[in-house]
Amino acid sequence: MSDDRIAEFTAFRQRMNERILAQDNQVVRRFFALDTQTYKAGALDVKTKEMLGLVASLVLRCDDCISYHVAQCAQAGVSEDEFFEVFSVGLVVGGSIVIPHLRRAVDFLDQTLATPDGGEEPAAG
Amino acid sequence: MSDDRIAEFTAFRQRMNERILAQDNQVVRRFFALDTQTYKAGALDVKTKEMLGLVASLVLRCDDCISYHVAQCAQAGVSEDEFFEVFSVGLVVGGSIVIPHLRRAVDFLDQTLATPDGGEEPAAG
Amino acid sequence: MSDDRIAEFTAFRQRMNERILAQDNQVVRRFFALDTQTYKAGALDVKTKEMLGLVASLVLRCDDCISYHVAQCAQAGVSEDEFFEVFSVGLVVGGSIVIPHLRRAVDFLDQTLATPDGGEEPAAG
Amino acid sequence: MSDDRIAEFTAFRQRMNERILAQDNQVVRRFFALDTQTYKAGALDVKTKEMLGLVASLVLRCDDCISYHVAQCAQAGVSEDEFFEVFSVGLVVGGSIVIPHLRRAVDFLDQTLATPDGGEEPAAG
Amino acid sequence: MSDDRIAEFTAFRQRMNERILAQDNQVVRRFFALDTQTYKAGALDVKTKEMLGLVASLVLRCDDCISYHVAQCAQAGVSEDEFFEVFSVGLVVGGSIVIPHLRRAVDFLDQTLATPDGGEEPAAG
Amino acid sequence: MSDDRIAEFTAFRQRMNERILAQDNQVVRRFFALDTQTYKAGALDVKTKEMLGLVASLVLRCDDCISYHVAQCAQAGVSEDEFFEVFSVGLVVGGSIVIPHLRRAVDFLDQTLATPDGGEEPAAG
Repeated sequence: MSDDRIAEFTAFRQRMNERILAQDNQVVRRFFALDTQTYKAGALDVKTKEMLGLVASLVLRCDDCISYHVAQCAQAGVSEDEFFEVFSVGLVVGGSIVIPHLRRAVDFLDQTLATPDGGEEPAAG
Repeated sequence: MSDDRIAEFTAFRQRMNERILAQDNQVVRRFFALDTQTYKAGALDVKTKEMLGLVASLVLRCDDCISYHVAQCAQAGVSEDEFFEVFSVGLVVGGSIVIPHLRRAVDFLDQTLATPDGGEEPAAG
Repeated sequence: MSDDRIAEFTAFRQRMNERILAQDNQVVRRFFALDTQTYKAGALDVKTKEMLGLVASLVLRCDDCISYHVAQCAQAGVSEDEFFEVFSVGLVVGGSIVIPHLRRAVDFLDQTLATPDGGEEPAAG
Repeated sequence: MSDDRIAEFTAFRQRMNERILAQDNQVVRRFFALDTQTYKAGALDVKTKEMLGLVASLVLRCDDCISYHVAQCAQAGVSEDEFFEVFSVGLVVGGSIVIPHLRRAVDFLDQTLATPDGGEEPAAG
Repeated sequence: MSDDRIAEFTAFRQRMNERILAQDNQVVRRFFALDTQTYKAGALDVKTKEMLGLVASLVLRCDDCISYHVAQCAQAGVSEDEFFEVFSVGLVVGGSIVIPHLRRAVDFLDQTLATPDGGEEPAAG
Repeated sequence: MSDDRIAEFTAFRQRMNERILAQDNQVVRRFFALDTQTYKAGALDVKTKEMLGLVASLVLRCDDCISYHVAQCAQAGVSEDEFFEVFSVGLVVGGSIVIPHLRRAVDFLDQTLATPDGGEEPAAG
C-alpha cells in the first residue's frame, strides 16, 4: 500500500468505528469494548498478545486485521526477526493460501518500520 | 464505496453473470438458478430469507455477498435497527475477524438507505 | 445421535461452561454473557435471531452450535418446513461441504421434534 | 475407523439422505441432484473430477466428504502414489491444520484399498 | 482486472517474493520451495496438479491464488470447457459464497486466453 | 476425553504419522519436517511459538491441533492464567463458533495439568 492508501484506510476505519458505536446496539458496542480489552496486559504482556492477534488474523486471512496487528506489534517492540517467526507459524499452520496475505503483511511491515513513529493509535479491529 | 465504485461493481457483476451463464456448463447454470430460487418466499418470507443470507455472508466474510444481501434486505423492508441486530449475530458468532467487513457493510448500508429507491434489481450472488 | 449421547453432550456442555466461567478471566466471561445477550428479543424476535444463529452455525460447519440452535429454534416455534428453508439457505451459501452437517442437523431435529418438551434450557454456545 | 464404524457411517448417510430427500423442499433436493451431476464425466473424466472433489474436501477439512471422495477415487482407479500427490497439494495449500484430516484420510484409504471391491456406491456428499 | 492492474499485481508479487526470500528465515524459505515443488510432474501430470491447486484456491476463496493457478492451468493446456468443470466442482463444494470469486476468475481467464502467450512464468503462490 | 481416549488418540496419531512418512512422497515428508522445525526456539522462544500455534489452531477450530498445542504449551511452562488469555484472544477473534472447541480444550488442559509429567513428546501436528 502507498502512504496515501494507508492514510485513507485509517481514516475510513476511524470514521466507521465512530459511526458503528454511535448506533444504539448494545451487543455491537460491548463487542468492540471487549475486543479492546482482550489485548491489555495481564498474565501475558501486550507484545505477546498482539503477536497472538497477528497470527490468528494471518491464518484467518483478514488483511485489515493483519495490518492492524502488525502496527500494534511494531509499537510493542516486535523485531523484524520475531515478525518473520510469527509469519512462519501462520504460513505453516495456514498453508500456501496465506502467501498473498503474507506479501501484503511484509509490505505493510516494511512501511511501518520505515516510519519514525511506527504508526499511531489505531482504532479497534 | 463511492457511488462510482458501486456502479462499477454492479456493472461488472451483471456483465460477468451474463458471460458465465452464456457458457455451456449445465452445473454452473443450474447452481445460479438454484441460488435465485433459494430466496423466494416460502414457509419463510423474503425478508427473513434475505436476513439469513446476510448473516451467512457476514460470518463467511464475503464483501460482495454482504453488499448484495444488504441491498436485498433494504428492499424487503429491513429497518436500521434490524440490520444492526443481524450484524450483532454475525459479529458474535464470527468474531472480531468480521469487524472490517462490518465497517464496509455499514458504509454500504448508509449509502443504500440514502438512495431513494434503495438499489435496483441486482443479479445473483 | 442416540438419546444417551445427547444427554452426555448436554451434561458435558453444562459442566464445562461452569468450569470456564469459574475461571478468573473477565474477557472470556464477558464473551459468554454477550453470547447470551445476542439472542434476546429486540428489533427482531427470538425466533428470527435463533434462525440467524442456526444458519451462521451451518455455514461455519459447527455441529455443536447447530444442535444448540436447532433446539432453541424448536423452542421458539420454528416449524419443520421453516427449518428446511433455513437449511436450504445454509446449503446453497455454504455448498456441499455442509451436507454431512445437514444430515446430523436433521437427525437431531427429528429427535428434538419427537420429544414432548423439545429440549430444555441449554447453556451458551 | 474400524469396519464397524465405516458400516455404521454408511448406513447413517444413506438413511439421512433418504429422509432429507423425502422432505418437500425443492431447493435442498435440487442441490443434492446437482451435487451428483457435478462428478459425471464431461470435458474432464470421472477420475479427475473425483480428485478435484477430494482436494477441495481436504482443504475445507470435512472428514465425511474426504472419506466419500477417497472411496470414489479408488473406484475410479486413482493409485496410491496419485492419492498422496492429491494429499500433498491439499497439505501445502491448506497447511498443517490439514494434518489430522490427512491421518484419517490415509487410514480410510488403507482400509479401502484392502477391501476387494474398494467400497460400494456411496450416496451424495 | 485491466491489463495495467494485472501487470501491477505481477510486479508486486515478484518484488515481495524476492523481499521475503531475502529474509533470513529458513522456515518461510523452505515453505516457498516446497510450494513450487508441489506442482512438479510426478504420478500426476502438471495439468492435473494445477487444476487441483485451482479448485483448492477456489473453495478457500483466495483471488490471488485463483489468478495464479488459472494462468498456470492455461499454460498447461486446460481448455475453456475444462476450466468451467473445475469451476463447477468449486462452486458446488464451496457454495454461492464462491460466486464473486468465480466472476473474477472467469474475467481473468478471458484475459489470459485472449493474450497470445497465456501469461508468463509467475512466481510462487 | 477420558484417559483411554487420549491414549487411543495418541497411539493413532503416532501410527499414522509413521505410515505417512513411510510413503515415498517427498512433499508430504518435507512438510512434516517443516512443521516440526517451525516450533524450534529462534528469535522467539518455544513457549511463545507454541502459544502462537495454539491460538491459530483455536481460530481454525481443529480439535486435534488444539490438544497437541495445549500439551506442548503445558510442557513449555504456560500457566493456567496464560492459557486462558490465549483462549480469550482465540475466542474474541474467532467468535462464539470457537466455544465448543474451547470446552474441549479446557477439558483436555485440566487433564494435562492433573497428570504429573504433563504429557510426553507427541508427534507432529
